Amino acid sequence: MHIDILTLFPEMFYGVMESSILKKAADKDQFSYQLVDFRHYSTQKHKKVDDYPYGGGAGMVLTPQPVFDAVEAVKKERTSRPRVVLMCPQGEPYTQKKAEELAQEEHLIFICGHYEGYDERIREHLVTDEISIGDYVLTGGELGAMVVVDSVVRLLPEALGNEASAKQDSFSTGLLEHPHYTRPADFRGMKAPEVLLSGNHANIEAWRRKESLRRTAERRPDLLENQPLDTTDKEILQELKNDEK
Amino acid sequence: MHIDILTLFPEMFYGVMESSILKKAADKDQFSYQLVDFRHYSTQKHKKVDDYPYGGGAGMVLTPQPVFDAVEAVKKERTSRPRVVLMCPQGEPYTQKKAEELAQEEHLIFICGHYEGYDERIREHLVTDEISIGDYVLTGGELGAMVVVDSVVRLLPEALGNEASAKQDSFSTGLLEHPHYTRPADFRGMKAPEVLLSGNHANIEAWRRKESLRRTAERRPDLLENQPLDTTDKEILQELKNDEK
Repeated sequence: MHIDILTLFPEMFYGVMESSILKKAADKDQFSYQLVDFRHYSTQKHKKVDDYPYGGGAGMVLTPQPVFDAVEAVKKERTSRPRVVLMCPQGEPYTQKKAEELAQEEHLIFICGHYEGYDERIREHLVTDEISIGDYVLTGGELGAMVVVDSVVRLLPEALGNEASAKQDSFSTGLLEHPHYTRPADFRGMKAPEVLLSGNHANIEAWRRKESLRRTAERRPDLLENQPLDTTDKEILQELKNDEK
Repeated sequence: MHIDILTLFPEMFYGVMESSILKKAADKDQFSYQLVDFRHYSTQKHKKVDDYPYGGGAGMVLTPQPVFDAVEAVKKERTSRPRVVLMCPQGEPYTQKKAEELAQEEHLIFICGHYEGYDERIREHLVTDEISIGDYVLTGGELGAMVVVDSVVRLLPEALGNEASAKQDSFSTGLLEHPHYTRPADFRGMKAPEVLLSGNHANIEAWRRKESLRRTAERRPDLLENQPLDTTDKEILQELKNDEK
């Protein structure tokens, strides 16, 4: 996979791209990336990339020219058909399913905006996907692009050391994860549950499933709605409901 | 406001904290921050911070000791009562409302985990808030903490140059933003809407409100449910529905 990131602040990415899983995945040739400062593509005086909004109003708007030219330049560098992803609050809410979909692609181009917004023609004629990472306002699209890149790259076949890990995570199973405990069994009087120290694997599995269901029911009942639950799961949820009374 | 960020990868933050609004806000003393590598607080051999999960399973779990000790150390550095925020997929889904709430605080402590998860005692006895930035799996809590810090700091009184900007953003108004256009009026044959060039402010405002409602209705009808709509808005939505037929 190759990823091009179009941004006016390439230096924002250095720390994240050079750390942890992303660094390891790049070192293992799982993916390559390029940070493209699209200011360089501006044909305006002083490499201007923004202008006042037509119709008035606060803030500045990204002009179409440098963004179109930068996208077209990075497209020409490869033969595969890229997905062109615009990071914006009006985009499709990002999910793990979308991460899995993007992880199948050969070439991703991210456009990160700042200022008040993008000229609408970028949205209409250049991008294939608009993504929002959540219902909150960020200074620019850079953090969103980092989030999407991180979540996609960790799904590439050999990015994670331990493949089992990716599958058991929250959202990968559709339920929130059960609680974890590690040593010491007693930390300042706070104890780990005895069942986890018992060595009885059937009991441990049952405890984990129950706690996973409990946590999901308490915190994110919306996730249970699209979840295939077996008879045991349904009994556990009924039990948890009865316990509350 | 002061922000402490507890992480095993402080270098991930450099690019983001040194750029754009965060840099400007720090320079203007709107907030101060400290990156704390909690590995330094480990009392274990080789500064170990993780261990195998009780009960078996893939991945490693963050042990309580270094996290408790690091949080207690940064708490002692100030007199104000901090919010201790754990970044995790099981947390409360992050929203603009939560950003506004956190922006009122004097001291925020963020705990960023990696590995399979946190020892549950951290969650139960140390943190005040658990936050998830969205339903997707990330390598660690660092990107989540950056997202929360960015969204909170930009709400501080003088962080943004132009205060009007913060108020009109998507999610701040409860609707998705209307499209923006800027020069040129004709870019490669793609034209900006004439109304925006008309200079008629009432028409421009009406067009913007309509497009904002249209976009929200098309992409995020869920946002309309909790939205105070006046009679004109309702008429516009009805019109849009009729247009579809």
